[in-house]
Amino acid sequence: MIELIAFDADDTLWHNERLFYATESQFTEMLAAYHSADWVRQRLLATEVKNLGHFGYGIKGFILSMIETAIELTEERIGGVEIQRIINWGHEMLRAPVDLLDGVRETIEMLAPDYKLMLLTKGDLFDQESKLARSGLGDHFDAVEVVSEKDAKTYAAIMRRHGITPSHFLMVGNSVKSDILPVLEAGGAAVHIPYEMTWAHEHVESPQGEFTRLERITELPAWLRR
Amino acid sequence: MIELIAFDADDTLWHNERLFYATESQFTEMLAAYHSADWVRQRLLATEVKNLGHFGYGIKGFILSMIETAIELTEERIGGVEIQRIINWGHEMLRAPVDLLDGVRETIEMLAPDYKLMLLTKGDLFDQESKLARSGLGDHFDAVEVVSEKDAKTYAAIMRRHGITPSHFLMVGNSVKSDILPVLEAGGAAVHIPYEMTWAHEHVESPQGEFTRLERITELPAWLRR
Repeated sequence: MIELIAFDADDTLWHNERLFYATESQFTEMLAAYHSADWVRQRLLATEVKNLGHFGYGIKGFILSMIETAIELTEERIGGVEIQRIINWGHEMLRAPVDLLDGVRETIEMLAPDYKLMLLTKGDLFDQESKLARSGLGDHFDAVEVVSEKDAKTYAAIMRRHGITPSHFLMVGNSVKSDILPVLEAGGAAVHIPYEMTWAHEHVESPQGEFTRLERITELPAWLRR
Repeated sequence: MIELIAFDADDTLWHNERLFYATESQFTEMLAAYHSADWVRQRLLATEVKNLGHFGYGIKGFILSMIETAIELTEERIGGVEIQRIINWGHEMLRAPVDLLDGVRETIEMLAPDYKLMLLTKGDLFDQESKLARSGLGDHFDAVEVVSEKDAKTYAAIMRRHGITPSHFLMVGNSVKSDILPVLEAGGAAVHIPYEMTWAHEHVESPQGEFTRLERITELPAWLRR
């Protein structure tokens, strides 16, 4: 019944959030003389959310939001040396090795002969394409869609464009808000595989609709055969 | 013979380079106490080119490159106030009104009933989708492709994905390097409409292959009927 399986990328196929988290920890240390780590995290999140409409998702927007937060929280006393250090963290994040989650490679290799596989991810096009290439999984995917927002309209357009009726479409991802609820709204099926940490902006208070939650991606082939 | 016309976006449909140029002028003024405008422009371009592999194209990468250049050229003496001013220029650029080139709206409206139209642009996905929406031209386009690099392989993949044989594909754009030569290499046709200013990284010394050069986009419908 399922013909096409679309996978979210960040924190579904490869680790991502912990890279942001590690950088955020360095950032709170940098500003420790000025403010508590908690307050720095809180202000950074507020800046990120404020900037989402301009910057979208991704590392470049994150770096810019850190710089803005550092300027705000030091009342402009932050110096060029520190700003350059923040930018260097960004360069490091952008060239960080792509670290696949456990079982991803085997699962993708197992599914590839029987299904059309799609990478369907939000974020920065350039950054995501670079990560797919570095992941070594590129050859298993029949299609890559990098979108700026994951809402029901976007999912419906993607199904249409690839000639897939919604009932033959399955989305697999770690975010209830982005990967599950809008897919259900568009008439598709969805499997939620939670990641160990979720960005604060992604929490959904009362998830609605029917979907499956698996603990790990290696359970997916058996679930599909059920 | 032509079925699908793909248009580059920046400086083909709407003004873009002059927005960067205006910001660059503010930037050279900011650093006037340290270095000549010429030297500042030269160092900024060098930083942008160095960062292309990490940042890709777009406004966010440009802002980050300005910040890095400012730190380098002031030997880290640049302050939080100036850095914030650079970031604010970025916010202004990202929400600047989309300013269509002369004749674009009429030409697109004239071609839309007879051809499949595609927006095919390099750069930041989020930023380009936002500009298309703000341009008011979105409804005339059958497809939007935002790619990270415009080479022959990318063009061939796009033709394949949309089921268009190369001889039925026409690309229209202002950059010989990105919009013309790789399209010819992929077997498509190309029309070059030069823009008044071209980013220094885009100059091609000896263009090869056969393509048409038009002075303005309004000449396109007549050229297609030739």
